[in-house]
Amino acid sequence: MPQPKSTAELRALDAAHHLHPFSDMKALNAEGSRIITRADGVWLTDSEGNRILDGMSGLWCVNVGYGREEIVDAVAAQMRELPYYNTFFKTTHQPAIELSAKLAELTPPQFNRVFFTGSGSESNDTVIRLVRRYFDIREKPQKKVIISRRNAYHGSTVGAASLGGMAPMHEQGGLPIPDIVHIAQPYWWGEARQGETMEEFGIRTARALESVIDAMGEDRIAAFIAEPIQGAGGVIIPPITYWPEIARICRERDILFVSDEVICGFGRTGQWFGCETYHTHPDILVMAKGITSGYMPLGGVMVADKVAEVLMEGGDFNHGYTYSGHPAACAAALANLAIMQREKLVERVAENVGPYLKARWSALAEHPLVGEAPMVGLVGALELTPDKVGRTSFPDVGKVGTLARDFSFANNLVMRAVRDRLIIAPPLVISHGECDELIARARRTLDQTYAELKRRGWVA
Amino acid sequence: MPQPKSTAELRALDAAHHLHPFSDMKALNAEGSRIITRADGVWLTDSEGNRILDGMSGLWCVNVGYGREEIVDAVAAQMRELPYYNTFFKTTHQPAIELSAKLAELTPPQFNRVFFTGSGSESNDTVIRLVRRYFDIREKPQKKVIISRRNAYHGSTVGAASLGGMAPMHEQGGLPIPDIVHIAQPYWWGEARQGETMEEFGIRTARALESVIDAMGEDRIAAFIAEPIQGAGGVIIPPITYWPEIARICRERDILFVSDEVICGFGRTGQWFGCETYHTHPDILVMAKGITSGYMPLGGVMVADKVAEVLMEGGDFNHGYTYSGHPAACAAALANLAIMQREKLVERVAENVGPYLKARWSALAEHPLVGEAPMVGLVGALELTPDKVGRTSFPDVGKVGTLARDFSFANNLVMRAVRDRLIIAPPLVISHGECDELIARARRTLDQTYAELKRRGWVA
Repeated sequence: MPQPKSTAELRALDAAHHLHPFSDMKALNAEGSRIITRADGVWLTDSEGNRILDGMSGLWCVNVGYGREEIVDAVAAQMRELPYYNTFFKTTHQPAIELSAKLAELTPPQFNRVFFTGSGSESNDTVIRLVRRYFDIREKPQKKVIISRRNAYHGSTVGAASLGGMAPMHEQGGLPIPDIVHIAQPYWWGEARQGETMEEFGIRTARALESVIDAMGEDRIAAFIAEPIQGAGGVIIPPITYWPEIARICRERDILFVSDEVICGFGRTGQWFGCETYHTHPDILVMAKGITSGYMPLGGVMVADKVAEVLMEGGDFNHGYTYSGHPAACAAALANLAIMQREKLVERVAENVGPYLKARWSALAEHPLVGEAPMVGLVGALELTPDKVGRTSFPDVGKVGTLARDFSFANNLVMRAVRDRLIIAPPLVISHGECDELIARARRTLDQTYAELKRRGWVA
Repeated sequence: MPQPKSTAELRALDAAHHLHPFSDMKALNAEGSRIITRADGVWLTDSEGNRILDGMSGLWCVNVGYGREEIVDAVAAQMRELPYYNTFFKTTHQPAIELSAKLAELTPPQFNRVFFTGSGSESNDTVIRLVRRYFDIREKPQKKVIISRRNAYHGSTVGAASLGGMAPMHEQGGLPIPDIVHIAQPYWWGEARQGETMEEFGIRTARALESVIDAMGEDRIAAFIAEPIQGAGGVIIPPITYWPEIARICRERDILFVSDEVICGFGRTGQWFGCETYHTHPDILVMAKGITSGYMPLGGVMVADKVAEVLMEGGDFNHGYTYSGHPAACAAALANLAIMQREKLVERVAENVGPYLKARWSALAEHPLVGEAPMVGLVGALELTPDKVGRTSFPDVGKVGTLARDFSFANNLVMRAVRDRLIIAPPLVISHGECDELIARARRTLDQTYAELKRRGWVA
């Protein structure tokens, strides 16, 4: 490890040489980055010695928490035996095989085969070519269109960002690519009509899928892709009527249903996968993040047997990544999943810490600034609003969210702001005491934000 | 690490659960995968106890060889401190900063800033959005087209595979995406006119770039992307006239020149980067593979100061990956680069083992089956041909290459076949004795292939 340097020295080097993702580098270089130096459990430490409660599990990934020697030992042991080998050209290795078998065991019964990638972006990007290949082999090459949703996040490659429905990403670089269509998202707070119940809104929004299939023709549609809960879109938790209606439509039509479990997978919603929480029956399951708890980059695409059988009849699938099934990454995943199983972390989210945190999180909805405070498993949101009843937004959407996010960070709690919505997804190992601490810091953040908005005259 | 299982048991699990990249899974499952269990230096061991000389450095990546405890220790130490944190949202960490600074030191002087990714695919995919963003900020949004070359390989995402010029990849999944144009490759053996010298061919092929810029209009072209030596295309080493002419054209036009150094970077050609071997002056430098020698997945895109300055004036660049600058991957890269510098591996390729292997490799051109045997640094090819003078191909291109590749594997030497061209890129640490062994096994492979072709009546 490099010798520790001073914060000032590190910031200067960072400004001179490092282009951060999703950042305004001129502004950031003027301000200086916050430098994280170490972490343990749910706690980060920065170069100034602050202890920060990580309410976002890194970037939705550190499900088993930081400081897991067991994963480190597994990675180191694998690297000493075989640090790398490819799975092209008729070769493979034991970690990729063992992880394939483990994933077949953990995923719903229709899934028995995995195609490995290095990230969620690479996984979702793989989906584009895979679903089209599937219909080519079935001699339906005109089935090319993939239906996604506005405000969805499926990654940042050209293909994955095109699948996603993020306007700021589509504004740069000539996206989306052809043959991807975006329908409405099940965001009741932001998009329901006046007087429309959540249940009515859920049905109406789901039927947008049926409408677009009818309008374009089923013979052109290859797949529908969705996150069980939209994560980076602001933790958009659908009304209870939404998923059953989507599942019905997918069942009735000859299209593939792709569940993007990059965020929801591996316990986040209180089941192993979000599709289990919502009782959908996907044909393709996209995974990354929690598969290794972020200790090593790894992603994968599970295909249902009916899809795998067609693909295997089609000869070569001309696709793959150098790090598809990286042995040390697979070893990290195996150790991570062993921890999750041994410590029963998924059950813990469903039955213990999930309900514990949700009861306290939901109570934040009583704060004058909070419109809704939904939570499923260990992922939740706080919609900030000037008018809880009328469900109105602040002018200049995003300003209040950023203000609150900055207060939260000053309170040494990592929450993320999406528009004017604060979101959390803490490590699945968070203790009850740490939940209390998270709630106390979130409440302080809301109070400080409210006081500041009053001072500015932005709320009554 | 999982307990060792028998080859039969592993093959059964592999067939049941694992979809390999770039494979015909039905055929592979019937045949059974070769299972690599451990590796050291340039040697692989499989589950049957065979010791195999890895002539391909894994997949062009294990530049410092297998079994480097120093990299393992660096990864484990970093993981114990901070196994993961993101570089979004105004945060960073010391390994990403230190690696940024190290890359600025190692790359040509115009490069001082890096955008991290998780792979070569993610890096080249990033280039698409980055070069378009650059011209958007310069208020030239119509400059969107990227010129690449037929038979180029730039990765396997939808974007990266579209940049690439691989027909079998374009045949699946609706590729390429719009606004990517492919020109001829500098493959003298396969594409020169009768009687055309290598020098003439190099100039003519380079000028295809100028022609397409003139035909489409410079105001529509954003960038030209190329590997210094096309790797997966079959180690296409350009005539000496090619790169100076390309460099002239790029200099004269307002387009960005992107050097894809995923394979050529980090010593492969006897300089740190292939653009140094060929004295080109790229604006963007794409890296992966050798940056960590494959021990951890990592990629990056270096941008020249003139590009970085524009990007930084443009506000947010809405792009990034969860594992952009993964701390343990950056730690692996730092340890890997420290080995390369301390052991002077780049100099070793240029002055010692490169010339040693090249002298022996070139002599294989005397074999009756070999048309040409070019090598630069430690990357080389053997063109198999029924007619050395007429430069003809075997019927059913690829059959003879695969036959030879299978003989090579049976001789416990990993060479790869591209069409009827055998290629190698061994670890930079290969000893003289191991070079002799590589040559002996390659010669035996050629003899066996030749004998088999004679037996079949495919050669006179």
